[in-house]
Amino acid sequence: MSLLVIGTLALDKVETPYEARDEALGGSATFFCFAASNFHQVGLVGVIGDDFPMGEIAKLEAHGVDTRGVEKAAGKTFRWAGRYEADWNTRTTLDTQLGVFENWMPTVPDEMTNARFVFLANAAPAVQSAALDQCENPEFVMLDTMNLWIDIARDELLALIRRVDGIVLNDEEARMLTGQRNLIKAARAVLALGPKYVILKKGEHGAFLVGKDVHFSLPAYPVDNVVDPTGAGDSFAGGFMGYISAARNTDPLTLKRAMLYGTVTASFCVQGFSVEELVRHDRGRVEARFNELLSITSF
Amino acid sequence: MSLLVIGTLALDKVETPYEARDEALGGSATFFCFAASNFHQVGLVGVIGDDFPMGEIAKLEAHGVDTRGVEKAAGKTFRWAGRYEADWNTRTTLDTQLGVFENWMPTVPDEMTNARFVFLANAAPAVQSAALDQCENPEFVMLDTMNLWIDIARDELLALIRRVDGIVLNDEEARMLTGQRNLIKAARAVLALGPKYVILKKGEHGAFLVGKDVHFSLPAYPVDNVVDPTGAGDSFAGGFMGYISAARNTDPLTLKRAMLYGTVTASFCVQGFSVEELVRHDRGRVEARFNELLSITSF
Repeated sequence: MSLLVIGTLALDKVETPYEARDEALGGSATFFCFAASNFHQVGLVGVIGDDFPMGEIAKLEAHGVDTRGVEKAAGKTFRWAGRYEADWNTRTTLDTQLGVFENWMPTVPDEMTNARFVFLANAAPAVQSAALDQCENPEFVMLDTMNLWIDIARDELLALIRRVDGIVLNDEEARMLTGQRNLIKAARAVLALGPKYVILKKGEHGAFLVGKDVHFSLPAYPVDNVVDPTGAGDSFAGGFMGYISAARNTDPLTLKRAMLYGTVTASFCVQGFSVEELVRHDRGRVEARFNELLSITSF
Repeated sequence: MSLLVIGTLALDKVETPYEARDEALGGSATFFCFAASNFHQVGLVGVIGDDFPMGEIAKLEAHGVDTRGVEKAAGKTFRWAGRYEADWNTRTTLDTQLGVFENWMPTVPDEMTNARFVFLANAAPAVQSAALDQCENPEFVMLDTMNLWIDIARDELLALIRRVDGIVLNDEEARMLTGQRNLIKAARAVLALGPKYVILKKGEHGAFLVGKDVHFSLPAYPVDNVVDPTGAGDSFAGGFMGYISAARNTDPLTLKRAMLYGTVTASFCVQGFSVEELVRHDRGRVEARFNELLSITSF
């Protein structure tokens, strides 16, 4: 096993200005898996309730995701409900039901503990730490988090940040974590917390990567038909980690190319509801859009 | 004369979260001139009142700006007052005093009517049109405007847009002009109004250029010490037009390079109050930052 993700599998209720859907497949690890599996096989560690539609697990497996680390627990699957405003940038969480995720602690299957690349998708820092504890000397660990954990579990999160190689944050999270409004200053402040690399995501305005040996800034791929932004960040991470894991390399050039693959993968994600477009996309479409993004952003 | 600008010379009152200044040199054409003169000689057409500090005219001339088109009229110089909020993205106009600009119609000096490159800086469309009428077959005309004119002089503006080669707009102006919220759709809708090229500026999030033979997107240069954003857009235009005018070329590669020069020039502008940093910058500093931006945004 080369690439491992720990995170949520969820059922989402999503309202956009144009459409509403209930019981849509969601969760940080789910989006990551569909995104990364285009590049490399992924091992998935997470938990579902007894109400989870097993056809979705079959769909993940059909995409080459190793689901042996998905635990089925008695109770309800994690549920999230949210609404997007017409500008797509304003998201309101309407409801969160942790369900079986509430008291879950991850068990990384023996076959997966030797993963070289590990993505700790958004979850409580205690859950992320417990998963990382079970990994044997991974080459590159990337962490995601959210405002909630920065707010209520800051110390645990800071301890975890010191143990990882990279962290992905959106602009709001980076400001909240560091108290710096300017995003360059915020990114430098995050680096001072320990990781070698920070990826700062700015939604429709693109993303940048900073580290001691690299500084790379990239606009978003221009999407003119956003359908549902849910999972865009996890899809970015999936494209990024999937690419570097397949390349088995983290040199600056590989990281820069991975930023493009992450951006392209996220652009597919937002063009469909839930994982619809991620499921549909294939490596050929990814490569075509990669080349298009390259031509838009370079000479 | 190769490069000509028509626009305002002003005295600004600016409040930022950190500082306030009164009677600071401002105006769309002023910023443009200091920005463009690093690349090429500029001819300036504008109007000042009898209260305008003539030392500022000398400063423009010292930067190679031909000020023979600056008319001195009886009355007060155009004055603008505004305030920036802590996020730097929210700007409130506190006061506008048109002064001598109110009834002014431009006269392009005979020596300047053969300009090959013309920038119609922000002013009433009637003023911009009158200036353009006096130009003899320029190779490339670029237009800037603002919300006010989109609102109160839409028909005149649309007629003028059909006559120019390119237009620069910020995100808000593009949405207002086209009714399209998505910026890619907005840019395409602007192209449908007639110009060959649209530059859409997104402030700290960069800018993109679209046209029939080019699509180029660029993040902003990462500035961690914003002092005063006033004039950033005009400085961008100055760097852009100064570069293509010096190159006497508008092929896609030149336009892409010009986007970088515009971005770099705007980044200097915001690092000082009024034109302070623009006055201080020189071609060597511009080239160093151009190379830095190139390394941040390419492989």
